[in-house]
Amino acid sequence: MDEDAFRRHRDELGADRSRGAAELARGALALAAASARKAPASDAADLVRELRARADALARARPSMAPIARLLGAWRDAIAGLAGATLGDARAHAAAAAEALIERSRAAGREAARHAAAAIGANRTVITHSLSSTVLELFALLKDSGVRAIVTESRPLLEGHALAARLSEWGIPATLITEAEIGLFVARADAAVVGADAVLADGSVINKAGTYLLALAAREAGVPFYVCAESFKWLPPDALPPALEEMDAAELGAPRWPRVEIANIYFDLTPARLVSAWFSEDGGKPREGRS
Amino acid sequence: MDEDAFRRHRDELGADRSRGAAELARGALALAAASARKAPASDAADLVRELRARADALARARPSMAPIARLLGAWRDAIAGLAGATLGDARAHAAAAAEALIERSRAAGREAARHAAAAIGANRTVITHSLSSTVLELFALLKDSGVRAIVTESRPLLEGHALAARLSEWGIPATLITEAEIGLFVARADAAVVGADAVLADGSVINKAGTYLLALAAREAGVPFYVCAESFKWLPPDALPPALEEMDAAELGAPRWPRVEIANIYFDLTPARLVSAWFSEDGGKPREGRS
Repeated sequence: MDEDAFRRHRDELGADRSRGAAELARGALALAAASARKAPASDAADLVRELRARADALARARPSMAPIARLLGAWRDAIAGLAGATLGDARAHAAAAAEALIERSRAAGREAARHAAAAIGANRTVITHSLSSTVLELFALLKDSGVRAIVTESRPLLEGHALAARLSEWGIPATLITEAEIGLFVARADAAVVGADAVLADGSVINKAGTYLLALAAREAGVPFYVCAESFKWLPPDALPPALEEMDAAELGAPRWPRVEIANIYFDLTPARLVSAWFSEDGGKPREGRS
Repeated sequence: MDEDAFRRHRDELGADRSRGAAELARGALALAAASARKAPASDAADLVRELRARADALARARPSMAPIARLLGAWRDAIAGLAGATLGDARAHAAAAAEALIERSRAAGREAARHAAAAIGANRTVITHSLSSTVLELFALLKDSGVRAIVTESRPLLEGHALAARLSEWGIPATLITEAEIGLFVARADAAVVGADAVLADGSVINKAGTYLLALAAREAGVPFYVCAESFKWLPPDALPPALEEMDAAELGAPRWPRVEIANIYFDLTPARLVSAWFSEDGGKPREGRS
């Protein structure tokens, strides 16, 4: 993959509004693997330099999404020792390292969903917001256990429609609502479950804007609020909270009026005190104490 | 106005998604006045019978909107004594009674807005949800006092756009957001202000779905949450809470999938404990005690 093709793919990843953080991180690793195989390089040291620069560029593509920087960082570290190898070996090992991380991330997401599914149990109604590959995995695990879903449309780009379509294929009874209806419907659910774009060290959660409102309404209704996210989404204690990405105002589809600003901030921060439990590949961790 | 024309206008009122409760109530009274002038009748007693039947039909058109039933009920009572008059006098008095109620409602909304504006003061940022004629009045009163607005788009039919357009005309700096962004923006406001479709005797508020989420987020952010509504919107202590109207699912613009229900409930109920103060033509009334 030459520099131009790489840049084009990286820009697509930066502009992708339909996939969640874990899926985009795995997409970034797939670009890393393709780069390992095809990036122009005169020798292994040259290749490693180029791949590390590409890893950095990918890590910066989506600042709110923790697993992209974390998985690319892990890959960057993994390939550092390849500079002394033959070019062929360096390519093969660097590609294999990226693919191993993809598989680790995928397995971690599956395991996180398995732990959450066990906690939720059979014949339950689950409300969720936005589209998370981990929450999708959760529904896949519960689809023969009588699960029912309440799904927000998720403005501005309505990725909730893609979730509703998938649940329908699986035969899971679902109700599609506007974000405005969250307060009306949360009390009908046994649990609220969301994925995450990033989890801060204190357990606060960055996820699609609206997640915070779901968490507030769940607490008010006495419905547990669960976060289901592989550990690559957790930020280290010394990390600064990531920026909340703002996207193109045109996505709201509103006319432009003088003196009216249109805000399209994609993520919000749900404080840890509103989270009942976090599920990762390591199991479930309930919040200690009371909010 | 003959029976067919009346039915057509009543159905339009039942289907109107863009005007709030106070405006629709005044629209219903305008239909009442037109009926007083033109409904076919052989004598005054016949006219009164027909007008009372029309008042009942109008009162049922929008069950979630208290002022329609209350103002039509007041008119129904006001015309009862006209059965012994001449037909001409009965027509004139019944029409005048409806028009007086329109003016009373309009003046009450203006006064409620005036009390809220005084409480909010100059150079403040006000966040609101949906489109309320009373809140519009409030912005008109504050437009030369440095007010700024945060306005939700208000799915499904985006009546927040009409509010943004009006604020723009008035030169009020405004930010348009999705409902999902309420949690991000409420802390930037000095006050959250909404109108109401109905206020229960305990102070709980029926208003456009999403209002409850704004109230929850306002409380969490320490931002006062005000309800601004003429007293015709208050229900008597013995009234049952009105039904929350559900509208056509097609308004969400989503595809239809097997086993996926699309919910389009237009109103939600915000408990009195989340309201900081209620403003009517009689002044402001802060909530007593703590939530």
